[in-house]
Amino acid sequence: MRNIKLTLEYDGTNFYGFQIQGRVRTVQRELESALKKLFQTRVKVAYASRTDSGVHAEAQVANFLIDSKIPPVKILLGLNHYLPEDFSVTQAEEVTLNFHAQFSARWKTYEYRVLSDWARHPTHRFRSFQVFKPLNLRAMQDAARLLKGTHDFRAFQASGSERKTTVRTIRRFKVSKNGKMIVFAVEANGFLYKMVRSLVGTLVKVGEGRLSLSELALILRKQNRALIGETLPAHGLTLKKVTY
Amino acid sequence: MRNIKLTLEYDGTNFYGFQIQGRVRTVQRELESALKKLFQTRVKVAYASRTDSGVHAEAQVANFLIDSKIPPVKILLGLNHYLPEDFSVTQAEEVTLNFHAQFSARWKTYEYRVLSDWARHPTHRFRSFQVFKPLNLRAMQDAARLLKGTHDFRAFQASGSERKTTVRTIRRFKVSKNGKMIVFAVEANGFLYKMVRSLVGTLVKVGEGRLSLSELALILRKQNRALIGETLPAHGLTLKKVTY
Repeated sequence: MRNIKLTLEYDGTNFYGFQIQGRVRTVQRELESALKKLFQTRVKVAYASRTDSGVHAEAQVANFLIDSKIPPVKILLGLNHYLPEDFSVTQAEEVTLNFHAQFSARWKTYEYRVLSDWARHPTHRFRSFQVFKPLNLRAMQDAARLLKGTHDFRAFQASGSERKTTVRTIRRFKVSKNGKMIVFAVEANGFLYKMVRSLVGTLVKVGEGRLSLSELALILRKQNRALIGETLPAHGLTLKKVTY
Repeated sequence: MRNIKLTLEYDGTNFYGFQIQGRVRTVQRELESALKKLFQTRVKVAYASRTDSGVHAEAQVANFLIDSKIPPVKILLGLNHYLPEDFSVTQAEEVTLNFHAQFSARWKTYEYRVLSDWARHPTHRFRSFQVFKPLNLRAMQDAARLLKGTHDFRAFQASGSERKTTVRTIRRFKVSKNGKMIVFAVEANGFLYKMVRSLVGTLVKVGEGRLSLSELALILRKQNRALIGETLPAHGLTLKKVTY
């Protein structure tokens, strides 16, 4: 028995998220369907992050156990032969049997892109969310610094999820600007349901001048969901990296 | 009578190029249709560059004459109200009557994006062309330097076009790498039909080691079309800037 680790890239636009659910098109469904064609047997995958409908990935990680001698590079080429054009395996390697894509993950990095301009920018519409107002970059950078560290992020969790603890550690939260594109890169040991989109929505509220740093500190301390910004749409979000 | 200059951004994926031809969906058709709705009269536009089917633009320029008192900012907002989501006016301003989007243009900048990796990258598939081989960046930079200046670019012109002269001046040709993405930025006083895609295809041939710098020099001197690289597909190309 071998354990194979895969790195996956997909354009989330036409997927109903990662996880198999019913008969809709999901990343997991396409992957397991390609694995079945390649190995002529049903293969179940574990995966690092259950990305939502519309969320993209540049380096999602999955793994599966298989009784086969096909070398990893041939697994990669074989899977890419069967996968559709909006989904690809970018790396395949054999790992030790105790590796698990979800439970072995230590850090995950997501990137959210916000385009700030008063005129619409159609060439960026599938990979960023547009805000039609100027945003105060410095204020958002200060707010991101405030969110770094270990906190109870309950206020930034969407309903419909149950986790044992809502405490997470953010070890990097960088807000940078490239022309009109503002990139929010956040790395944590885990994220609550829709937490990144909720965090960035709250930073945008700070950037618009509708939320002060002291109010943000209060949200963090009291876990007060009433004041946070809106949960931004999925298409601005990309899973960038999983660290083991 | 006023002369209005527009800056246009569009995702070329679903357009049959800029110019009106027959009944297919083109940028000019959408623009003139929006102008007609706004001004309740037929308006004909001039434009800087006749981008081909599939080519994108971040700053195409058009202009039109109109007998109307609507201020430019309201023209912009009005047009964007009527334009589809893959097309937008990003600037509108009144200019002197002798301004002509095509004939007043002095320099145009195009960008071609080549993704170089052996694994497929679906998140970039609409805005770059993928080459499944490593490319020698330094050799392509040297080749781009060779192409700079005033030359007869006849070898890099696709058939089906008739121009009085095939001499053009390239004043900037920068090849830079960002991760796996190689960006070719070229600025010239004009381009022949499919010239950018043909130039970049030739640089890629150099980067693959299939064409030497001395062969490239020979092509330029003898206008020999036989040796040049393939004309790369439209979706990697973006019109970035027109200078007046």
